[in-house]
Amino acid sequence: MGDDLVGPQSTEVTETTEVTETTEVKDAPVTLALDAEGGDNAPGEIVAGALLAASSSLRVLLVGRPQVIEPHLAGDVSATARSHISVLASASVISSHDEPAAAVKTMHDASIVVGARSVADGLSQGFVSAGSTGAMLAAALLIVRRAGGIRRPAIVTLLPGVRGPVVFLDSGANAECRPEHLVEFAILGTAYSRTVIGKAGPRVGLLNIGVEEGKGNELAQAAHRLLERSGLNFVGNVEGTDLLADVADVVVTDGFTGNVALKAMEGCAGAVFSRVRDAAGTGVRSKVGGILLRPALRRMRAGYDPEEYGGTCLLGVRGLIVICHGNATRKAIANGLRFGAEALRKGVLAGVEAEVARITVPGDPAAS
Amino acid sequence: MGDDLVGPQSTEVTETTEVTETTEVKDAPVTLALDAEGGDNAPGEIVAGALLAASSSLRVLLVGRPQVIEPHLAGDVSATARSHISVLASASVISSHDEPAAAVKTMHDASIVVGARSVADGLSQGFVSAGSTGAMLAAALLIVRRAGGIRRPAIVTLLPGVRGPVVFLDSGANAECRPEHLVEFAILGTAYSRTVIGKAGPRVGLLNIGVEEGKGNELAQAAHRLLERSGLNFVGNVEGTDLLADVADVVVTDGFTGNVALKAMEGCAGAVFSRVRDAAGTGVRSKVGGILLRPALRRMRAGYDPEEYGGTCLLGVRGLIVICHGNATRKAIANGLRFGAEALRKGVLAGVEAEVARITVPGDPAAS
Repeated sequence: MGDDLVGPQSTEVTETTEVTETTEVKDAPVTLALDAEGGDNAPGEIVAGALLAASSSLRVLLVGRPQVIEPHLAGDVSATARSHISVLASASVISSHDEPAAAVKTMHDASIVVGARSVADGLSQGFVSAGSTGAMLAAALLIVRRAGGIRRPAIVTLLPGVRGPVVFLDSGANAECRPEHLVEFAILGTAYSRTVIGKAGPRVGLLNIGVEEGKGNELAQAAHRLLERSGLNFVGNVEGTDLLADVADVVVTDGFTGNVALKAMEGCAGAVFSRVRDAAGTGVRSKVGGILLRPALRRMRAGYDPEEYGGTCLLGVRGLIVICHGNATRKAIANGLRFGAEALRKGVLAGVEAEVARITVPGDPAAS
Repeated sequence: MGDDLVGPQSTEVTETTEVTETTEVKDAPVTLALDAEGGDNAPGEIVAGALLAASSSLRVLLVGRPQVIEPHLAGDVSATARSHISVLASASVISSHDEPAAAVKTMHDASIVVGARSVADGLSQGFVSAGSTGAMLAAALLIVRRAGGIRRPAIVTLLPGVRGPVVFLDSGANAECRPEHLVEFAILGTAYSRTVIGKAGPRVGLLNIGVEEGKGNELAQAAHRLLERSGLNFVGNVEGTDLLADVADVVVTDGFTGNVALKAMEGCAGAVFSRVRDAAGTGVRSKVGGILLRPALRRMRAGYDPEEYGGTCLLGVRGLIVICHGNATRKAIANGLRFGAEALRKGVLAGVEAEVARITVPGDPAAS
């Protein structure tokens, strides 16, 4: 079914449609819920982030205990920004020690639960939090609920590819996957790349341990076969070495491998930067070199900084869920809000719907 | 059983025993077979590598077609080095396009088969090749054969940790693993760390997507439980971010995840280095800084260069199998030979035997 739909549509037609939709949506203000009580720096930095990002086109619904939030909204703050922030009262906080699903089911007045409910009820179009990732995932699945045709929402991360961002998923929402789940990830990633990044026909790659077909574990081999006949623009296996190279616009893998690969890259980039710093601190010659090179290195490092790109989100539910690092500062929170608003304006949710309608996932009861 | 044996032995006793063994072995010359016909730069660079490394304590058995090898051993070469090289005739070459296991079974006169047989027959103690990794693995399993008590030999890679090398396995020999295989990897890694790196009681970590117990996919969760009661010095889960941090001396994972993580780090380090280079080429200030910093960066980069550390090997068979990059130059080959000889002199094979005797692998028929 999915294959039949691809043929008649030319790339241009698809592109034109998208551009029109984007323009229409652009003027509409976006409302995002923000968990004022999530993360190591809550509530001060979270509220400060809201004040940095809030505007007439980005309204913020600040979720938390009013007595905790209000002092940070008073005093010497921008009256304009303040006028675009509303407070949505919650009464408790889910900590990282709580069992996520159980907490979401029982703590009806927790900030993550209230924030997720605001999306489900249409008060907001998305929810941003630096709190417990596990609780955010549980709230997304149980309260915001899955988008039609998607059984496994996935965490999307943007990798700093050599020629622009690479859409990478799943970064850790689904530790155990079946082959058809990787096809769903490819659908979500394709929708994201089309709408948010603006690629007309994103190339989809499968993270694997060799480029040849037949490589990999059982999951990768089966996923390869399914992706080949999915109707997506599947370009084959992508090795870890090529994740940042310009060989695919979207790379899919299971949430275990994805999380390990992502964190391994983070750790490696951190180690290399430290060593560059160490190298620039040894000997007069290197020290002078390091000082001269510092601004350029700082600009470059920003590309690897989650505070800057802020683009980790859960895709595949009926709203946009933006997941910030636990140690997010006001800058990271503001970037998370801006990123979320931009993705929604560009039509990422409608993009997922369109891609689900276009591609048939094998093993989907609705398709057989 | 394994637990009982650990108790009475103090760390000092173990250490003393190891030091004595190492000293005894140190004087014995090592003979390594070298595949003269494997890799992109064969035979010229391979033979040149042999000439760089061969000495009275490192004899090289050069495997290949004599008419192909001999010209490179003649002419302007060191007579001393030449005198420590013998030629072992093979008649064909397994290419990367051949199906590895089938090729090893049928091409009895191929260089990889002849080299592996020299280990099995006691002509050499190890085999070095830059040829097909798949064929090397197949030859190791089918011809050199598994070490007693080891069902899944694994590829060991040394990661450039912030406080010295981290022993990482499996880097790709076993794409599909059961939990007990990860315990075998931990045994192999512990033996390697004790003997080659010289750690008395190496800390073993499990690569996972969170530090808490209960995290990860089914394989990681089950492996965690087995490692906890293995008698090894298991320190728990290690996240990708901490692979290069000093949290474990040995990190184990399945060969799929291991290969992806390793290559992701390689790709990321390469991308960061390129960007440092680009940053140092933009603007006069940065250019001067880059030139001054260059020697320090070059020294640092060597730590991430497979040509330099040359330490990827297959452990768990009755000999040492050193796997070089397909594009290995003479320097990489010479380092691979030196690394292999050093590991053998330090008693890595006896170390594996000792660790297998000390630790009981669950699910091992011999142990139940």
